[in-house]
Amino acid sequence: MIYLDNSATTPLCKAAVDNIQKALEIFGNPSSLHSVGFEAEKLKESARDNIFKALGIRKSSGDRIIFTSGGTEANNLAIFGCAHAKPSNKGKRIITTDSEHPSVLTPFKMLENEGFDVVYLKTEKGAVNIEDVKKYVDSNTILISVMTVNNETGALYDIQNIFKTAKQINPNVTTHTDCVQGFMKIPFFPAKMHVDMCTVSSHKIHGPKGCGALYVCADVIKTKRIVPVICGGGQEGNYRSGTENMLGICGFGGASGYMQESLSDNCAKLKELRSYANEKLSSIVKLNEPINYVPYIINFTLPDIKSETMLHYLSSKGIFVSSGSACSSNHAKKASHVLLAFGLSEKEADSSLRVSLSEENTKEDIDSLFDVLSSGISTLAKTK
Amino acid sequence: MIYLDNSATTPLCKAAVDNIQKALEIFGNPSSLHSVGFEAEKLKESARDNIFKALGIRKSSGDRIIFTSGGTEANNLAIFGCAHAKPSNKGKRIITTDSEHPSVLTPFKMLENEGFDVVYLKTEKGAVNIEDVKKYVDSNTILISVMTVNNETGALYDIQNIFKTAKQINPNVTTHTDCVQGFMKIPFFPAKMHVDMCTVSSHKIHGPKGCGALYVCADVIKTKRIVPVICGGGQEGNYRSGTENMLGICGFGGASGYMQESLSDNCAKLKELRSYANEKLSSIVKLNEPINYVPYIINFTLPDIKSETMLHYLSSKGIFVSSGSACSSNHAKKASHVLLAFGLSEKEADSSLRVSLSEENTKEDIDSLFDVLSSGISTLAKTK
Repeated sequence: MIYLDNSATTPLCKAAVDNIQKALEIFGNPSSLHSVGFEAEKLKESARDNIFKALGIRKSSGDRIIFTSGGTEANNLAIFGCAHAKPSNKGKRIITTDSEHPSVLTPFKMLENEGFDVVYLKTEKGAVNIEDVKKYVDSNTILISVMTVNNETGALYDIQNIFKTAKQINPNVTTHTDCVQGFMKIPFFPAKMHVDMCTVSSHKIHGPKGCGALYVCADVIKTKRIVPVICGGGQEGNYRSGTENMLGICGFGGASGYMQESLSDNCAKLKELRSYANEKLSSIVKLNEPINYVPYIINFTLPDIKSETMLHYLSSKGIFVSSGSACSSNHAKKASHVLLAFGLSEKEADSSLRVSLSEENTKEDIDSLFDVLSSGISTLAKTK
Repeated sequence: MIYLDNSATTPLCKAAVDNIQKALEIFGNPSSLHSVGFEAEKLKESARDNIFKALGIRKSSGDRIIFTSGGTEANNLAIFGCAHAKPSNKGKRIITTDSEHPSVLTPFKMLENEGFDVVYLKTEKGAVNIEDVKKYVDSNTILISVMTVNNETGALYDIQNIFKTAKQINPNVTTHTDCVQGFMKIPFFPAKMHVDMCTVSSHKIHGPKGCGALYVCADVIKTKRIVPVICGGGQEGNYRSGTENMLGICGFGGASGYMQESLSDNCAKLKELRSYANEKLSSIVKLNEPINYVPYIINFTLPDIKSETMLHYLSSKGIFVSSGSACSSNHAKKASHVLLAFGLSEKEADSSLRVSLSEENTKEDIDSLFDVLSSGISTLAKTK
């Protein structure tokens, strides 16, 4: 098996599995006021420490890590939570891009229906034009949400500059980034990048599925610019109720610690692997290269073969890639909004594949992909 | 260790652990369109089958099991999801009781702030007066949510009669029950009990924490009486987006299968254990017995000793119980709303403990509790 779909999900790392095994033993409810509960609470907080560390945040800063059921819920919490915070007579403009994950875009669309004034910034070739930020951020703007790394194209958005510009125009704007595809894959420090809130996810970094977190800076907490989406027993400082997903949280903590240790090695390794892949693949497919991009994600357009046809061909040969994002497979089939925004035609978008690498992939994997892709192109072109 | 806090959480059963170990191996994203994804999808659906079976529902019925991050989220989804469904010009009355879990009460309070007309039915001695149901359900009523079993007192509400009565008055009322403390502890079949939606949770039945589900009947789906709370990639039929918590879901499926097998044996065993406990404990504490109750939960008031003082005394002797629910430990300390509604004074509520049993407990456990409780009462009374 050659797994090249690491942006959909990743196999668990040993550190995650070890922590999950520990959590299988310690069964207490972290909210319980007896020693069985305290043990669980300790395990959970040690996982939180790892996420703080990975984001370069001191726990004493007043910043918060709010554990959620994953990146989707964290994005919903950031966006609905910020829009619905009191006072309700505050500004109504909220800004995002046309290439966000559905868990960002759908909340924005729902808020549009509630009467919010939504601006979708264009991202042609995977970049936001800073002039658009200057044009649309105003005194009525309460939120700007721009992803760190695009999950389909690997585009690396210049959020530091975008958020800095937004805050220069209106210091009260809350900034949020969906960092699911960036966390523990590129150096990322919210405090240095004018990020007030950021979403991270466990299962993209070799942790278990169903766990993520929203980082929220102390100032957003202090000024009450966020309210919970899921309410009840008051867990997670009342920002996210519900008995905690101990297996998920502990596994996430383990994965985060493991990935942080190897981050710079992985970056160097992946950069080289990506150069190698670019060189080989560009001879048989059209690479959709964003202006700036991370090495992990390669998007390319096939010569006149539907994405799904090639995806199944590759799968039958033991090579696993993706057409668009895994999430969008749940929606009615239509061309990826990300690729259309990037500048592809509907037909091109419908013939594009995503290969997503992890530090476990090798040049041999790329060679195999190249070989099977080549034979697929000639075989499938014939049978068309 | 004598663990008597099974309504807070339970240790994992072997069937849950086995399924979790399986899910640790099969790492695909169930949404992925290749064989690694299909394997994960299969595992997830087999867990869903177990929940269907446990509720006595045929999968072909059109009813839905929507996996969530736990009971709290499922309650939020049922209540917000029903209240916010279109048309928005429908009736505004929503009804619940004064003794619900915070994950029901808080959504109702938030909806009250949004302009909904909320009625809280009284539950003195752990029972809803059916005359109140007749009085308050009207043509404007869209939702009635009454828990199956109270998590603090063990009161068993007559939801079958309550919901039947509500639907006789207004057939369009959607009925919801928080069945977290009833599922796989008493025979429970939503279809026979006029239940349109019901909440179940994994970690109260020896499954992992951070997973639950909302059952929604076909008619509620068909008539679009529910909308999602968490949105994005469209998982769970678009009723709950986010990559699925595979460890949680698979563990939940395992636990559910295991508990269903032994349900009638457990009921018989617990009934006997409860009789034994009632007889012993009533000689030293005042039992707070609801009119109808399940054998699993015993609530009692200590003679003039604060709950927490006794809880820590018992904990120091290796016996684990609870003062109120684990969830409420996250809130500012105040007397339990459930015990006040039951009829206790603030002082009595502040001196009450909850013992919650599982099928793993024995008469010897009750004997030990009795002995340590007795010595605690004399020791702590002295030092007062």
